[in-house]
Amino acid sequence: MSILFAAPDMDAGAWRARLADQAPDHAVALLGEPFDPSVVRYVLSWRHPDGALKELPNLRVVFSLGAGVDHLIADPGLPDVPVVRVVGPELRDRMSEWVVMHALIHLRQLRRYERQQRERQWSDDETQPKASDVQVGVLGLGVLGADAAKKLRAVGFSVSGWSTTPKLLDGVRSFHGEEGLRTMLSEADILVALLPLTATTRGMLNAALIRRLKQGGPLGGPVLINAGRGGLQVEADIVAALDRGVLRGASLDVFEREPLPALSPLWSHPCVYVSPHNAAISEPGAIVAGVVRQIEAFERGDGLQNVVDRVREY
Amino acid sequence: MSILFAAPDMDAGAWRARLADQAPDHAVALLGEPFDPSVVRYVLSWRHPDGALKELPNLRVVFSLGAGVDHLIADPGLPDVPVVRVVGPELRDRMSEWVVMHALIHLRQLRRYERQQRERQWSDDETQPKASDVQVGVLGLGVLGADAAKKLRAVGFSVSGWSTTPKLLDGVRSFHGEEGLRTMLSEADILVALLPLTATTRGMLNAALIRRLKQGGPLGGPVLINAGRGGLQVEADIVAALDRGVLRGASLDVFEREPLPALSPLWSHPCVYVSPHNAAISEPGAIVAGVVRQIEAFERGDGLQNVVDRVREY
Repeated sequence: MSILFAAPDMDAGAWRARLADQAPDHAVALLGEPFDPSVVRYVLSWRHPDGALKELPNLRVVFSLGAGVDHLIADPGLPDVPVVRVVGPELRDRMSEWVVMHALIHLRQLRRYERQQRERQWSDDETQPKASDVQVGVLGLGVLGADAAKKLRAVGFSVSGWSTTPKLLDGVRSFHGEEGLRTMLSEADILVALLPLTATTRGMLNAALIRRLKQGGPLGGPVLINAGRGGLQVEADIVAALDRGVLRGASLDVFEREPLPALSPLWSHPCVYVSPHNAAISEPGAIVAGVVRQIEAFERGDGLQNVVDRVREY
Repeated sequence: MSILFAAPDMDAGAWRARLADQAPDHAVALLGEPFDPSVVRYVLSWRHPDGALKELPNLRVVFSLGAGVDHLIADPGLPDVPVVRVVGPELRDRMSEWVVMHALIHLRQLRRYERQQRERQWSDDETQPKASDVQVGVLGLGVLGADAAKKLRAVGFSVSGWSTTPKLLDGVRSFHGEEGLRTMLSEADILVALLPLTATTRGMLNAALIRRLKQGGPLGGPVLINAGRGGLQVEADIVAALDRGVLRGASLDVFEREPLPALSPLWSHPCVYVSPHNAAISEPGAIVAGVVRQIEAFERGDGLQNVVDRVREY
């Protein structure tokens, strides 16, 4: 039995080495190199070309090498086998590091103090709000959203969360459904998006949603943090809202088009932090052991975990 | 009975208003305005001029409006009454926000990504270590150090702590004494100083200590975070260590002289974050209620809390 590595943007050598180490009984083929399609039982995919998995007669499971599965669902030639999302604790922890860091940066006005530092100016005349006075609303309470919510709370923020179905989290005000979304948005000083990209969520971070965010507040206006998927956001709307001051600031790790085009106004907007989709990188060391464990369980006849619902799209 | 407000650098109006609100039975006098010394029973001090509290025949207690008491102990004319440190939960929480933010900033190489953003450069080619691979050593496990350690751990760091006397903290490797200090320093990737300034700790963050820090490590070298007292650090040694790469970076909120002199190389060092001693500002809203509660308890004959040991100096 054999594993096909189908992630053209990733460092195949590092993944192959780790797979050889953790799953010595499996042959590992690389998409783009010659291999016998009939031996492939498992695919590890990140943005494989559409249709690339069509002719694998013995394919059993496709693993997505990251939290998002929109890249798989979008492939019209995706075989009808279970798709498993790989969200290991490391990816989750990295995402939360990034989210908590950016929430604190906006809370403590880091960019203002960095500017003062460049100007050798000593001034602490502006009172800074404290974390407990700032309401962070987390959109999406899956593995990533729930962990971010917990850690935002641990550093002192007031935290609320929204998900499609009701979820209970310790110390987090939880909302669901359309009415719950309205309430959470109207109370959020910082909005953190950690939603999957689906037909429903695509373009959700747009002018209409931004208008529903609380105005004013301890940060002088709402801040948007998107570490989910670039397709969630309408960047023209976000830029317009920042320009008009309806949004006070933003931290974006994902974009409609990646790499972010050189002409995007987001690069140079004074209230925006841009990072190159590296809030949480899928690294072989963090992922392979979990995939191999699932393959071994599946071979023993046990069920798979984190199987994607193709109708829900996550 | 009467309270004397003796903090020339602070906004007396805001403090007086808050005191009038919370302690309507007490008259509040301001140092620098005329008052009857014989009615003063309590002093709220932050850096009063030496000797200013000498002629107060009915003085009972001096409250320090901040975590540090070195400014009081240094006054040779300080009357022989109990000195109380005011470390409310708000000051503690603000300090931890700042410490956790700066630990994450160094972990996630924010300055590098900000530079890339200015240059409109999309590059995530460098693997970032994860928080759990980074050992943060906290110097001082008082109210502030213990809280920072707890929150650093909550966001994923491996945390150790050092204090003069043994202290146990959940999930934190605790060290004490000279031998313990040596071990903690030799293992720390990020060193956080939250010590009181005493005859023993003055100038402790010097070349000799920096030499004992772990070299290399996941951040490429040790990082110093000082949110304690400026007098802990020898800035010439820190700058020299940064220049030679023995220190990889630093976040400093406090300085030997404040405001930080315009000619200090710290302002413009590429690996240094400077902030204007505002990691945790003592605000009347956060402090007055606790002071008034202590005064009322004292008037009832109960004991005082957080009384400073003048020999230990904290």
